[in-house]
Amino acid sequence: MKQKELVFGTAYYPEYMPYDRIDQDLNMMKKAGMNVVRIAESTWSTLEREEGIYDFSYIDCVLEKAFERKMYVIIGTPTYAIPSWLARKDADILVTTKNGRANYGHRQLINILNPVFREHAENIICRLVEHTASHPSVIGFQIDNETKHYGNDGEQMQKLFQEYLQEKYKDTDTFNKAFYLAYWSNSIHNWEDLPDMKGCVNGGLVGEYEAFKRSIAAKYLKWQAQLVGRHKRDDQFITQNFDFEWKKFGADIAQDGYSYGVQPDINHLEGAQYVDLVGTDIYHPTQDNLTGAEIAFGGDSIRSLKNENYLVLECQAQAFKYWTPYPGQLRLQAYSHLASGAMGIMYWNWHSIHNGYETYWRGLLSHDLQENPAYEEACVIGAEWKKHEQKLRGLVKNNKIALLVDNRSLTALKWYPIDRDLSYNDVVRWMYDSLYEMNLECDVVDVKALKEEKYNMIVVPALYCADEDLIQRLDVFVKNGGVLVSSFRSFVANEQASVYPDAQPHNLTECFGMTYNQFTEPGRSKLFGEELSYYMELLKPDKAESLANYEHPYWNPYAGITRNMYGEGTAFYVGCFTTKECLKKVFREAAEKAGILISSLVWPVTIRSGVTENEKNIHYILHYSENAKDIICPYEKVIDILTDVVYEKGDNIHLSDWDVVILEEL
Amino acid sequence: MKQKELVFGTAYYPEYMPYDRIDQDLNMMKKAGMNVVRIAESTWSTLEREEGIYDFSYIDCVLEKAFERKMYVIIGTPTYAIPSWLARKDADILVTTKNGRANYGHRQLINILNPVFREHAENIICRLVEHTASHPSVIGFQIDNETKHYGNDGEQMQKLFQEYLQEKYKDTDTFNKAFYLAYWSNSIHNWEDLPDMKGCVNGGLVGEYEAFKRSIAAKYLKWQAQLVGRHKRDDQFITQNFDFEWKKFGADIAQDGYSYGVQPDINHLEGAQYVDLVGTDIYHPTQDNLTGAEIAFGGDSIRSLKNENYLVLECQAQAFKYWTPYPGQLRLQAYSHLASGAMGIMYWNWHSIHNGYETYWRGLLSHDLQENPAYEEACVIGAEWKKHEQKLRGLVKNNKIALLVDNRSLTALKWYPIDRDLSYNDVVRWMYDSLYEMNLECDVVDVKALKEEKYNMIVVPALYCADEDLIQRLDVFVKNGGVLVSSFRSFVANEQASVYPDAQPHNLTECFGMTYNQFTEPGRSKLFGEELSYYMELLKPDKAESLANYEHPYWNPYAGITRNMYGEGTAFYVGCFTTKECLKKVFREAAEKAGILISSLVWPVTIRSGVTENEKNIHYILHYSENAKDIICPYEKVIDILTDVVYEKGDNIHLSDWDVVILEEL
Amino acid sequence: MKQKELVFGTAYYPEYMPYDRIDQDLNMMKKAGMNVVRIAESTWSTLEREEGIYDFSYIDCVLEKAFERKMYVIIGTPTYAIPSWLARKDADILVTTKNGRANYGHRQLINILNPVFREHAENIICRLVEHTASHPSVIGFQIDNETKHYGNDGEQMQKLFQEYLQEKYKDTDTFNKAFYLAYWSNSIHNWEDLPDMKGCVNGGLVGEYEAFKRSIAAKYLKWQAQLVGRHKRDDQFITQNFDFEWKKFGADIAQDGYSYGVQPDINHLEGAQYVDLVGTDIYHPTQDNLTGAEIAFGGDSIRSLKNENYLVLECQAQAFKYWTPYPGQLRLQAYSHLASGAMGIMYWNWHSIHNGYETYWRGLLSHDLQENPAYEEACVIGAEWKKHEQKLRGLVKNNKIALLVDNRSLTALKWYPIDRDLSYNDVVRWMYDSLYEMNLECDVVDVKALKEEKYNMIVVPALYCADEDLIQRLDVFVKNGGVLVSSFRSFVANEQASVYPDAQPHNLTECFGMTYNQFTEPGRSKLFGEELSYYMELLKPDKAESLANYEHPYWNPYAGITRNMYGEGTAFYVGCFTTKECLKKVFREAAEKAGILISSLVWPVTIRSGVTENEKNIHYILHYSENAKDIICPYEKVIDILTDVVYEKGDNIHLSDWDVVILEEL
Repeated sequence: MKQKELVFGTAYYPEYMPYDRIDQDLNMMKKAGMNVVRIAESTWSTLEREEGIYDFSYIDCVLEKAFERKMYVIIGTPTYAIPSWLARKDADILVTTKNGRANYGHRQLINILNPVFREHAENIICRLVEHTASHPSVIGFQIDNETKHYGNDGEQMQKLFQEYLQEKYKDTDTFNKAFYLAYWSNSIHNWEDLPDMKGCVNGGLVGEYEAFKRSIAAKYLKWQAQLVGRHKRDDQFITQNFDFEWKKFGADIAQDGYSYGVQPDINHLEGAQYVDLVGTDIYHPTQDNLTGAEIAFGGDSIRSLKNENYLVLECQAQAFKYWTPYPGQLRLQAYSHLASGAMGIMYWNWHSIHNGYETYWRGLLSHDLQENPAYEEACVIGAEWKKHEQKLRGLVKNNKIALLVDNRSLTALKWYPIDRDLSYNDVVRWMYDSLYEMNLECDVVDVKALKEEKYNMIVVPALYCADEDLIQRLDVFVKNGGVLVSSFRSFVANEQASVYPDAQPHNLTECFGMTYNQFTEPGRSKLFGEELSYYMELLKPDKAESLANYEHPYWNPYAGITRNMYGEGTAFYVGCFTTKECLKKVFREAAEKAGILISSLVWPVTIRSGVTENEKNIHYILHYSENAKDIICPYEKVIDILTDVVYEKGDNIHLSDWDVVILEEL
Repeated sequence: MKQKELVFGTAYYPEYMPYDRIDQDLNMMKKAGMNVVRIAESTWSTLEREEGIYDFSYIDCVLEKAFERKMYVIIGTPTYAIPSWLARKDADILVTTKNGRANYGHRQLINILNPVFREHAENIICRLVEHTASHPSVIGFQIDNETKHYGNDGEQMQKLFQEYLQEKYKDTDTFNKAFYLAYWSNSIHNWEDLPDMKGCVNGGLVGEYEAFKRSIAAKYLKWQAQLVGRHKRDDQFITQNFDFEWKKFGADIAQDGYSYGVQPDINHLEGAQYVDLVGTDIYHPTQDNLTGAEIAFGGDSIRSLKNENYLVLECQAQAFKYWTPYPGQLRLQAYSHLASGAMGIMYWNWHSIHNGYETYWRGLLSHDLQENPAYEEACVIGAEWKKHEQKLRGLVKNNKIALLVDNRSLTALKWYPIDRDLSYNDVVRWMYDSLYEMNLECDVVDVKALKEEKYNMIVVPALYCADEDLIQRLDVFVKNGGVLVSSFRSFVANEQASVYPDAQPHNLTECFGMTYNQFTEPGRSKLFGEELSYYMELLKPDKAESLANYEHPYWNPYAGITRNMYGEGTAFYVGCFTTKECLKKVFREAAEKAGILISSLVWPVTIRSGVTENEKNIHYILHYSENAKDIICPYEKVIDILTDVVYEKGDNIHLSDWDVVILEEL
Repeated sequence: MKQKELVFGTAYYPEYMPYDRIDQDLNMMKKAGMNVVRIAESTWSTLEREEGIYDFSYIDCVLEKAFERKMYVIIGTPTYAIPSWLARKDADILVTTKNGRANYGHRQLINILNPVFREHAENIICRLVEHTASHPSVIGFQIDNETKHYGNDGEQMQKLFQEYLQEKYKDTDTFNKAFYLAYWSNSIHNWEDLPDMKGCVNGGLVGEYEAFKRSIAAKYLKWQAQLVGRHKRDDQFITQNFDFEWKKFGADIAQDGYSYGVQPDINHLEGAQYVDLVGTDIYHPTQDNLTGAEIAFGGDSIRSLKNENYLVLECQAQAFKYWTPYPGQLRLQAYSHLASGAMGIMYWNWHSIHNGYETYWRGLLSHDLQENPAYEEACVIGAEWKKHEQKLRGLVKNNKIALLVDNRSLTALKWYPIDRDLSYNDVVRWMYDSLYEMNLECDVVDVKALKEEKYNMIVVPALYCADEDLIQRLDVFVKNGGVLVSSFRSFVANEQASVYPDAQPHNLTECFGMTYNQFTEPGRSKLFGEELSYYMELLKPDKAESLANYEHPYWNPYAGITRNMYGEGTAFYVGCFTTKECLKKVFREAAEKAGILISSLVWPVTIRSGVTENEKNIHYILHYSENAKDIICPYEKVIDILTDVVYEKGDNIHLSDWDVVILEEL
């Protein structure tokens, strides 16, 4: 595809339709300017109705009619929802978790290690790819969907984990020592004595096990990619739909939550190495709660996996009742994805489903399958994209800030929570969102992928598990002039989640110029006159300067935030969970020290910039508000791509509600 | 019995007593004016202490002593609580639900399909009825108690369900299509592949399964009725104690909740066809929260099953601590049951139990088994009823409003909730209670029993599943001059809960003169200046008039409530969950159009009217308030049955706290 | 040991350490003035790494190095956490509860009745005691730790329970009658029909079962004590660490709660008879929520088991984040334990653990294992204790008030809750804390251990289950001049939790001069103008005087609190859950009638008194506040043991924040 066009399309399930509408649907898509559909990813029971009896007719039909309309098709391997005849072949195909064996019915409850499942999955994948790869409309394959380990605690998983431990730690004494297993008589002296992990109470070992399970999920993707690779054409890509940790907000069953933070059940970086093109789905609050933060966070995370443009394989159309979009919001969302570096978007999904499970997670079309306000807005997007795609394609970022994320720290802080109501991802989002609202763009970088030489400033939220090597590199980074901003609960433990038995933050006390050996619930403590919540470390500055001491009768000798000049650089340490406003003060100072320009515009006026394929600097002005306002143009001379209006520095730019302006530097 | 007397009595468990008190208890009952006791319905382990060893002596004793006192006895078949020796015979006798196999101990955890259970149940039922039917005091038999399917997901249930589906849908393709099973690969192409329903995620199929399970429960009643019918005398009735969905309000275990709405686990209409006389239990808040609404709703529901008088087989005496009655409340409650058409009431139960499970669900007597304020008030009721029963017997209603209820819609909206905090029954009660508070009496009619020709006005709360036939009949009803008032979420789907794939409300867009294809959480939307909650549809009036548009920056083009003149009639559609006051405005206008008289008196002065056996129009004035007040007599000339005071139109009628006045038209 | 020194020490786990620090740790302890460490109680997998392969080397090392430093060692038998090789020998070694079989991993999930477990436990206990008993540093042995029945519902437990019932009740009819089992067909007529107790719904039988399970736990202690007794020296004691019911307050997993009330899962009195010296652990809120109430309640409970000084085997150092101590609080806590009669304290634990489960239940040392504020405060305590121990040792109390507690009532009120939010222990603490805040010291006495002749006043919180004998003794106690203060829900039922079927309070209506047969949720009721919550009985005074009637339109004829002169004594009855202030009025009057002196000082100035080994009257003044204040010396002439300052009556005594003053009468 090579991004000849902006991708605009939708997931499409003709097999879910109440009557044959393929022509009508594709016509409506075409009218909306769509150019890609994704099909087949949950239709195993349609494609192989009984074992060995195949029917690809609906796929053929879509391919033929798409071809007629010059539309592209992405074929999904249908393995994330299995037919009941397969489940009947071996009870162990359904995953066994802490809660026992799953019942058949829901998707994504598969034991991906089960050999019978693998055998049949291999068969259907190969047949499907063989059947479709030669068709000219097929531009790529999605392997599985939102793949994870599904909490697999089955026999195969545990057996493999034991082998992995044995391979890694060699002897049980080393293993016991690594995780401090003498505690509560949990040490073993014979590998066979490794107990069922379902009962494990050792936070470190649980973390190791979770990391191992994430690996298994990634390797399952590798296996699928190899199968597809055998049959696909060279010009076809392989992608996967990576999703984020879901945040519930208290609504109805099956319809509660949105894409929030780092995914705990597969490591995106590990999985991404097996695909050509990274895809993702990003869902988020809408209406009065549409902020753009999830689109930005998700995009910055996914783009940073390969430092390339990526596919938004799913994004919401009407979704559930809380998210019925206001006029203008679908369009603002679409441009926001582009502004993060997406190659385009595909709705999930085309139509609202008439029965099943996600009946009220509505598609672009309502249940009446007719044109409606959401569809009409999609038509606007399609038309604009067609018109301007040459100017918008292939956005490249050159961010100078990296925000570090880490699956092991996420798992460790589930086991050793900072607070019941403050998760690892809450800390990540507290730091990310503060940057976002300041229009300080960053890469969201897996700790294993950090290339510190690319960045001027590194932001570290709650990096509980940090290995010696990383710690040393960060020390050097600061020494050499970098700016480091760390939150509390960073550099506490090693990869086994074993707390370093020396001064905190481990091996960075010199870098940060302070240490601490006490922490507490804040109670009535304040900082800068503002209340604190959840957690605070009692920092004792040595060379560092205290930016603020706690306001509290007993904790006031201790600092809450410190700054330390170290070598050529500066290291900030935020020892407590503050308001975002308070954190932004630190970021402002840190960015200045890092030589990063800070915009005077702030959210709800969001600015996202980059260089396009034709080497122009462009700036998306995304207006996340229903209140129209004028802003002053901060650029020397720019042209609004969408309207051709030219602005010079100081000119008023009018932003209506939920508006988008895309300024290309002249 | 033929309602020679008003029924006044109690459930009676001499086998639970700390010492032999049968004489003393019956004397106390007699003194209170009681004429009926219900016995035996949970005493299998007493009647058949070991397999095949019977002891009916306590029943004989009660019958003999009741006969001496000219009291009647209803015998309950003892099947809803089984002896442990029976549970030991076959593990499968205890029900298997989503949560696994039940443990022995609690009542109503039986697999009513188990053949061993059936064999022993048949035996004890037949022996008990044979033993007692000839006794002159026995006026009838209650089969089982509060019968339901108990969440039965056992093997027999699933096997029968598969056979039912096969019989109904014939081939798997039709079946797949009916429920859109291609979704998530859930389609089957071989009936044996129908998976365990415990994991089913298809809302429609779950609804079909629940309906099937309700049927099984009803057929179990049929089976019991046939057994009893073989042995009972012709003049003895068969009854069943139907109960309502329970609403928890957050109190202690086992003592939290009250009779709230449509029963999900048996269909009352289906069950009622197998009994001669419909019985029910109705429990409700008391003290400051006594409103009469549950007594009215329960009565209007149960009476409408056969359009006949019914038995209140259980109602509360002192119950648990929240419901200790204020002076006057027991009496007000008793008359309220009569005012709905009850043949009388029986307390649950006579005495407070000294150990077990419901020790603090107190009877009429406290644990000391002596006279107490509740008992003393029962004496007042008994004396009044004896004195006035000729004037109160056999109340007949001729309501012109029907409120439609439907088990399938209830199930569907559990699966596809309008909102986590707004259930189907919440919508039913929102509409019912609004009518009740306006003193607009209605029949509460199962959708399968509607005779639309009887009514001027039909009220439709959240009839999510509506079949084509009903929809057409309602269309005709309005065309012919009827008044239809529907809430949101009606006429959305068919009986399979498959959403109609055309304009909403399905086939009634002309009747209502509007359509919609968007809905949303209300957020800050208002209607008539009042806040909305949970859900709203964005109505687009065509011929209809908007009674109010939403007050919201983006939704204000859409109507919230519409009215449409259609043929000779009028159709109102309430697209959102409003305050009750707002809904009452609609009902007021609708009732006027339907030619139904609206009282100027409103709750807490409740008026319930009807025609008695001796063909007099009577009006119960039920005062649900602790604040005494005077009302103005709205009738030409009436006599208060209880006091013989005559009132003419415009006279003051004094109502003291929790008062009852019964006016007979002269 | 004979209390030659005040015990000051810590639990110590060298096997959990990241590197060998035994010398360093013991030196730090010695520097802090510590004289005892407790080791080994959870190290089975270290001591017996594989079946039959022993390694006591770390214990030998600790003993040797302790000996060098003249420190004492308590050896714990390591049975409360088992090695995984043992769990693998027999699946039944892990406990089966209502929730099924436990997984291996967590401690205290053992089926203590399993014979394989017993065999191996016997072996390791005997070997460990044999190995260590002769060492001069070993002063005693702790058997197991916080032993309970762990919710054991396994086969052995149920079999033994059936045998126990059969032995106790002889025939099934007596058994059925005792528990009213005819209810819901639960009666049996053959002992084999006794069903699995996991499903039992009879509150009385559940109570009997729980009492039986508590017995089994106590007998397990007896068994361990006998094993240790076989091998230990005569001068070595056997102790056990008794803990209290835990109260959650809504924080993180595994770190939420504190020592609150009567322990439901073992009866302390029953267990205490098998040990020489009673030990306990007491944990409690700190920082702004440090009140001293838990230290006092726990101490008064444990001391009263044998009326002797006791060991605080565990108390908190830094614990979790909510409890990081303010400066001065550790010291105040330490003295508060002494003031209750403790022989001293041992921290749990020495160091913060670097991985596992309780990583953030911090020890005295933080994870850096260096000196820190908590350690420094321990040094202060150690130094003071060494200096003053002769004057502080062997405190004896002669309290004139007994507060009665009862495991059976606790269990019964879990089944038959007064209110979901008001537990038995809430009522116990409501009464205990009111006394505590008034500086009215009491013994907390198990109902089976009451020697009423010792006391002037007996306080009875919610003694739901009271046998006839106790009731009669209390009647005589009042008749003979005693003062009885009972709360609501006392004297309701017998030991089987069967409600007495006559006037309440059973057989004490004359003593209290009142009765009641109604109770209710208070709703808007008030007493003394204050709102009531949860529950109230509608008291009808006969000879008693009403101290206050309920303020409520319908309940005002009834009394809420009554007082009755009976014989030579007085009986107070508090029929509702009032504020503590309201209850204190009753206690004030009761104490006066009982001739007990009431201090004018009240909490946060806590006074705890007693007679020391050298027969001096001493008074601990414990200042539970961060606000310094002066109090007036209420004693004729006293000397502050810590400062040697002498005060005379009327002198100002200055209390700084969290201060301690110990006054010895001159």
